[in-house]
Amino acid sequence: MTKTKTNPGNYFEDFAIGQEIRHATPRTVTEGDIALYTALYGPRFAVQSAADFAMDLGFEDMPADDLLVFHIAFGKTVPDISLNAVANLGYADGRFGVPVYAGDTIRTTSEVIGLKENSNGKTGVVYVRSRAVNQDDQMVVEYCRWVMVNKKDPASPAPEAVLPDLPKAVTPESLRLPTGLRLDKYDFQRAGSTFAWEDYEPGEKIDHVDGMTIEEAEHMMATRLYQNTAKVHFNQFEQAKGRFGKRLIYGGHIISLARALSFNGLENAFKIVAINGGTHCNPTFAGDTIHAWTEVVEKNEIHERPDLGALRLRTIATKDRPCADHPLKGDDGKYDPQVVLDFDYTVLMPRRQP
Amino acid sequence: MTKTKTNPGNYFEDFAIGQEIRHATPRTVTEGDIALYTALYGPRFAVQSAADFAMDLGFEDMPADDLLVFHIAFGKTVPDISLNAVANLGYADGRFGVPVYAGDTIRTTSEVIGLKENSNGKTGVVYVRSRAVNQDDQMVVEYCRWVMVNKKDPASPAPEAVLPDLPKAVTPESLRLPTGLRLDKYDFQRAGSTFAWEDYEPGEKIDHVDGMTIEEAEHMMATRLYQNTAKVHFNQFEQAKGRFGKRLIYGGHIISLARALSFNGLENAFKIVAINGGTHCNPTFAGDTIHAWTEVVEKNEIHERPDLGALRLRTIATKDRPCADHPLKGDDGKYDPQVVLDFDYTVLMPRRQP
Amino acid sequence: MTKTKTNPGNYFEDFAIGQEIRHATPRTVTEGDIALYTALYGPRFAVQSAADFAMDLGFEDMPADDLLVFHIAFGKTVPDISLNAVANLGYADGRFGVPVYAGDTIRTTSEVIGLKENSNGKTGVVYVRSRAVNQDDQMVVEYCRWVMVNKKDPASPAPEAVLPDLPKAVTPESLRLPTGLRLDKYDFQRAGSTFAWEDYEPGEKIDHVDGMTIEEAEHMMATRLYQNTAKVHFNQFEQAKGRFGKRLIYGGHIISLARALSFNGLENAFKIVAINGGTHCNPTFAGDTIHAWTEVVEKNEIHERPDLGALRLRTIATKDRPCADHPLKGDDGKYDPQVVLDFDYTVLMPRRQP
Repeated sequence: MTKTKTNPGNYFEDFAIGQEIRHATPRTVTEGDIALYTALYGPRFAVQSAADFAMDLGFEDMPADDLLVFHIAFGKTVPDISLNAVANLGYADGRFGVPVYAGDTIRTTSEVIGLKENSNGKTGVVYVRSRAVNQDDQMVVEYCRWVMVNKKDPASPAPEAVLPDLPKAVTPESLRLPTGLRLDKYDFQRAGSTFAWEDYEPGEKIDHVDGMTIEEAEHMMATRLYQNTAKVHFNQFEQAKGRFGKRLIYGGHIISLARALSFNGLENAFKIVAINGGTHCNPTFAGDTIHAWTEVVEKNEIHERPDLGALRLRTIATKDRPCADHPLKGDDGKYDPQVVLDFDYTVLMPRRQP
Repeated sequence: MTKTKTNPGNYFEDFAIGQEIRHATPRTVTEGDIALYTALYGPRFAVQSAADFAMDLGFEDMPADDLLVFHIAFGKTVPDISLNAVANLGYADGRFGVPVYAGDTIRTTSEVIGLKENSNGKTGVVYVRSRAVNQDDQMVVEYCRWVMVNKKDPASPAPEAVLPDLPKAVTPESLRLPTGLRLDKYDFQRAGSTFAWEDYEPGEKIDHVDGMTIEEAEHMMATRLYQNTAKVHFNQFEQAKGRFGKRLIYGGHIISLARALSFNGLENAFKIVAINGGTHCNPTFAGDTIHAWTEVVEKNEIHERPDLGALRLRTIATKDRPCADHPLKGDDGKYDPQVVLDFDYTVLMPRRQP
Repeated sequence: MTKTKTNPGNYFEDFAIGQEIRHATPRTVTEGDIALYTALYGPRFAVQSAADFAMDLGFEDMPADDLLVFHIAFGKTVPDISLNAVANLGYADGRFGVPVYAGDTIRTTSEVIGLKENSNGKTGVVYVRSRAVNQDDQMVVEYCRWVMVNKKDPASPAPEAVLPDLPKAVTPESLRLPTGLRLDKYDFQRAGSTFAWEDYEPGEKIDHVDGMTIEEAEHMMATRLYQNTAKVHFNQFEQAKGRFGKRLIYGGHIISLARALSFNGLENAFKIVAINGGTHCNPTFAGDTIHAWTEVVEKNEIHERPDLGALRLRTIATKDRPCADHPLKGDDGKYDPQVVLDFDYTVLMPRRQP
């Protein structure tokens, strides 16, 4: 008899500390992916929109949006890490490496860095560090995430619990700057705003004003572009019978929409360098309109770089709720039911030239 | 206190005659944009579809569709010119310059050439000439448009009225032909029709027969691709409370659909060289099916070019109404409520080789 | 009076045995088309996803998906062959030639190889062999198809019936392998599965498990990308009055979805080399969820190639019906009403290295 050929995914018992998983389907990023990313979210950051603007800053070419790279790297891990996942619990210690240009090929490998069975004996939490590299084995993005995964057999013994030590935020010292980055020719006007790093203050809250409604075709095209195969995004026949009755939107789609909306108020936040954490607070569905607002969490100088600084930001996205009053949590400390994303990340921004 | 970071747009008082506005977000056009344009509208003109067909005519490569270039150039102007606009009133004197190839970077600058406050004191009309150039500062498209813009303060004094002198149509002498254009190898059969410039007559009306239904995901992807941020196209949550209860489709989307439909009957109209004027007569919404018909307005020989001629065309698009009887206006002189576009432009067409 | 400029399409009387039709609109395939194909279907085969993976196998670059090439070649033929078609009856003897890379330009020519008027005198069957070549006149795909076409005038005399002799399946000897193909570096793990040609057996049935729901925007974008202009896919205004009340989805869209779903169980079926036959058993519409299963029909060694083999496959796609029990036909020998595709094709798969 022939063996079942389809991928059953990994269950909690299939993971072991130190295990390394080389994920399938290396992926060459092209100008086509970059154009689709623009069509799906509408980002307007000049560095990712114009080759000459980027090259004036020392990039080799127009780089792919950092989140496009993240989504592709992430998509690769789904068939091995989260096919049998119950929930995506968190991210930490995310860092972007060398820029990705059209023509670069990305592949992702994950290492299991933590395991903890839940007290119900039916599920466990798996922590992985995923690392995506280009064709020259240079890191393009790496991050930790933890997911709750079903056990195949509730009777199988629990492994020794190992919990990784994860930082609350990526430290400014460990951020990677693109090689050769220089900002002397940075054109604030063409970038869309004269506000520089100096103009932002910790505690400042920015309502990004605009709203964007999501269609089924859009989130499915995006998620397929990332070769992310999680079933809940694509199969209405199955989802119709489920808890929500409809397809769930990939959480990363909301991150990209929020980032694109944040251009209105953060025009010069020209590159994401770290993902400190993130929570998909509530599910989103086609027909929802996404708004976003951002709080400036920290300002950091960058060693020996008087020309640019880092901003640690917390961008909150909502569904069907404008953000002028900065919605977040209720009196009970729980997220407002219309808050769908709480994303903690670090961007680079030019300083006003001396 | 920190200043509001989001773009409030310009109000009528913010414009002054002679003012030059360098718009944000230069944009590198890629093969990805070109493929998306094909997927969104389905144009079949051979020059924009096949590199070798285009190069046989003297192009350096397959050029981007003229309207794709127009939409990108136009999109740049929205945050500065029409964010607070009440209505887009008209276009004139539009001319296409050097072809745009994948890899070229477009940026747009506008000059204010007219201002006239309306008698109600609440709004005014702003006339701008927008000019888009490539990375070598060569003009790729320029056009005038005028929009009705809100005043910030009805009490602010009216500026001296200045009305620009705009031509009814671009004259044949001022059309720009692509450098090195030659038509001796033009393959009528591969282009899809044996009808040449000689076969069209002023007054002739062509029903383009086919109809194309628009989906929300399509017009939003298109409009984001052009980085056009006009709020009415994207935010169903807000639009639900408005006059129509739904998202309005970017008028340029209809121009592109009408042009793609016009292939059936105008197969050899291989390049748009001028936009003489245009009216978005009625709004369109997702679910509408667009049909189109064209009247040949003028035929023009081109100086010292026995191999090609110009046709001034007027293409009319409708919603949910086939065009066999060439719908346009009612007995009251007003546009039929199903007519959504009246577009006056000039194309190049090969003449039958001697 | 000017002649009608729009394309009336060909009627049964317009075809003659031996007639050669050079179809319009040559088409340069770009990275943009490839990215759109990924976004529309989500294929994950490594050869078509990663340039370096492909080049390790001797390809010059990441090749376009074989079915993308097929759809583009096919789309060209529609205005001449099937604009007045009543039904698409079948395919046979389809063969892929040299790989298509971004930058290649495809053009299609068809030869009429069979004609048979139906007994009702109103329609007839036209058999064509369509052949698509690249800019160097190398065959990229060729296939036969037959369609039922309306007669313009039922009174016109029937031509002498000519029926072509078409093979049940493309023989292994006549398959074209990409020049320079070598499999010594084939990385099964990065390709997504360790199952090789040896692991599949004739008669084996594989349920591909996953389901994918189709949206209107998706199938229309795909079909326009292929410049396929068949009216039934695009015009809801017209279709609303028709038999189904809605737009019909291009049958090739289902073939591509089924192939993408088949990755789960056929990860190493890295290239389609032949299309032996195919039936679009029932129509599909937006909102339908597609599942698929595959039967291995034959295993074939390839002459002097101990490193790879061919599998003849039959992939069945359904709408709104999972495929765990391999649905196909009822007791009456007719296709199950939820079976929408029965596709017979041949793929290459690596053998386990000795």
